[in-house]
Amino acid sequence: MIYAVVMAGGSGTRFWPKSTKKRPKQFLNLFGEKTMIEETVNRLKGFVDPEQVMVVTNTDYRTMVKDLLPSTNTDFIIGEPVAKNTAPCVAAAAALLHKKDPDSTMIVLPADHLIGKPKEFLSVLDSAVKTAHQEGSLVTIGINPNRPETGYGYIQFDKSSEISAGEHPAYSVKTFREKPDLETAKKFLESGEFLWNSGMFIWKTSVILEAFKKHLPEMYKCTEKLMESDCGEDDLNQFYHACESISIDYGIMEKAESVHVVPGEFEWNDVGSWTAVHELSKKDENNNVIGKSPISLQGSKSNLIYSESGKMISLVGVDNIAVVETDNAILVVNLDKSQDVKKVVEDLKSNPDKEKFL
Amino acid sequence: MIYAVVMAGGSGTRFWPKSTKKRPKQFLNLFGEKTMIEETVNRLKGFVDPEQVMVVTNTDYRTMVKDLLPSTNTDFIIGEPVAKNTAPCVAAAAALLHKKDPDSTMIVLPADHLIGKPKEFLSVLDSAVKTAHQEGSLVTIGINPNRPETGYGYIQFDKSSEISAGEHPAYSVKTFREKPDLETAKKFLESGEFLWNSGMFIWKTSVILEAFKKHLPEMYKCTEKLMESDCGEDDLNQFYHACESISIDYGIMEKAESVHVVPGEFEWNDVGSWTAVHELSKKDENNNVIGKSPISLQGSKSNLIYSESGKMISLVGVDNIAVVETDNAILVVNLDKSQDVKKVVEDLKSNPDKEKFL
Repeated sequence: MIYAVVMAGGSGTRFWPKSTKKRPKQFLNLFGEKTMIEETVNRLKGFVDPEQVMVVTNTDYRTMVKDLLPSTNTDFIIGEPVAKNTAPCVAAAAALLHKKDPDSTMIVLPADHLIGKPKEFLSVLDSAVKTAHQEGSLVTIGINPNRPETGYGYIQFDKSSEISAGEHPAYSVKTFREKPDLETAKKFLESGEFLWNSGMFIWKTSVILEAFKKHLPEMYKCTEKLMESDCGEDDLNQFYHACESISIDYGIMEKAESVHVVPGEFEWNDVGSWTAVHELSKKDENNNVIGKSPISLQGSKSNLIYSESGKMISLVGVDNIAVVETDNAILVVNLDKSQDVKKVVEDLKSNPDKEKFL
Repeated sequence: MIYAVVMAGGSGTRFWPKSTKKRPKQFLNLFGEKTMIEETVNRLKGFVDPEQVMVVTNTDYRTMVKDLLPSTNTDFIIGEPVAKNTAPCVAAAAALLHKKDPDSTMIVLPADHLIGKPKEFLSVLDSAVKTAHQEGSLVTIGINPNRPETGYGYIQFDKSSEISAGEHPAYSVKTFREKPDLETAKKFLESGEFLWNSGMFIWKTSVILEAFKKHLPEMYKCTEKLMESDCGEDDLNQFYHACESISIDYGIMEKAESVHVVPGEFEWNDVGSWTAVHELSKKDENNNVIGKSPISLQGSKSNLIYSESGKMISLVGVDNIAVVETDNAILVVNLDKSQDVKKVVEDLKSNPDKEKFL
């Protein structure tokens, strides 16, 4: 059986004030009616049934997940008592699925990415699943880059290693690379050997558990213990508290010998900041993203307005900013500096008077 | 007896969304606790008693004036049924005061200017009153310019015509000049013969009525009729509807033969835009005016924040803007473009869907 494991543990702060501790990015509808986690699950329609979708999230968000995804089994909404990066999340999900069905395959998907061309996506996913079955390897999806992006990690693949499994070819992965500087990114793009690391993984649970045994043996011991337990809340708590905090990329993927990648041509964005929301949203004739607010814009270009209060938003002679209003805060940010929104969050965290605005 | 006539008829739109049709600039507290009209009246303490203060305002604002200035006689709060610029306002006030006391002197003051050094101001005012009594002329106060400002009108005076009346000398006025371009303003400043036109006037009611008779004879006829009436609401309505719309500067001052000016050294600003509010307010170490809002500013300089909602206002990587929040609107304006706020008001006026935000 094929299962999807949606990783929804993020407590993302880059979309403050819209994203908060109570409602991080994956639970926002930054693009249209549906939240990103709903879009992530809906996108799988016809490939993975809702009953085969597992969501791993922070304990605090389980009710919200159930509300947003009513078709998901409550047993399949896993609460993480502490954030320990992606490796423990994958290990816990693999343990639970493997215990249920030792022949299961899991598709690991971040809950907060934007994907266009969903049919193409499912076709790539199908090839990835077939590769994982055929090769018994760890498989990832890489995105064909269309620009020298410095905000993503890259995957280098062996062009000569083409494997046929389904509609899309797969290749052996040579290396995983951290976010490059611009010059390096340009070289990556020119070489034709590099793909963006999408953070999507496909493997048989038996294969990933073997990989944990080999590359993260301490975590594997915790995972074995979890599998032997009733997998109740206490067991999961014990597991998470015992695990080290490490990413699946760093802990497993970069070390594993047999890794394949299926290049995807669909549109993909990890939506890392308000700047990405501006880039990815529908714009008016002056390159402004205006949402549903009543507005009056005078001599103002390339701005993003995000407010649901119904207040009139007026911009006069300002370019390239985002104005975000929520019930308790207003953010005005230069779209070239949107990464610095995290500095605001740090400021609020470190100041007892301001903490209520988080 | 000396009376002050405070002109508070403006429906100023340059401070939208804080100034509205319901509460224009003179009724705002842009600088501290008190509204500008309260400051205007309080400033006269010891020189003109509250019972000798007349306020001319739009009919709709009479209740607000009474609330803000409870010591003012209700009979002395004059409601204008239509806005007809400053000449009819001065004529009506002169008529009412002259009827009450044919030997009265009136000091005409805009309700919405900022004045520093109030003692110096009163000393200048005292000399202006003495000049008006001694010379029987129309007297105005001119501000010694400290920069080649293009936003103000100028008064050219005859340096050789010095008259002594009180602590400050007065001079004969040669010409009134419209707002100049920068080059002209620089010449004005260098010459030492030019003062800023403050819009403050001092004269005996008998003298200004004679000037109306000579220079605005039609309006004088209406004024005579008003003086002969009971000066009730209907009489005032009739008067205002009959008068042409013209400024006292254009209708009288520029034409009158005997005009004197007393140069003032006190700080003065007509507070024409949010940019002026930024210039005139207390700033933090990064040149930001932050008011009372909780704030988090990251890499942001020379901004103005004006909000009373208690929301957290956060600026990231933005310079030289004003962020103004009210119950029903948010304005973000480049401080070099703050004159264009009037374009927003025009947009709202011309669009039925947006009119409610005025």
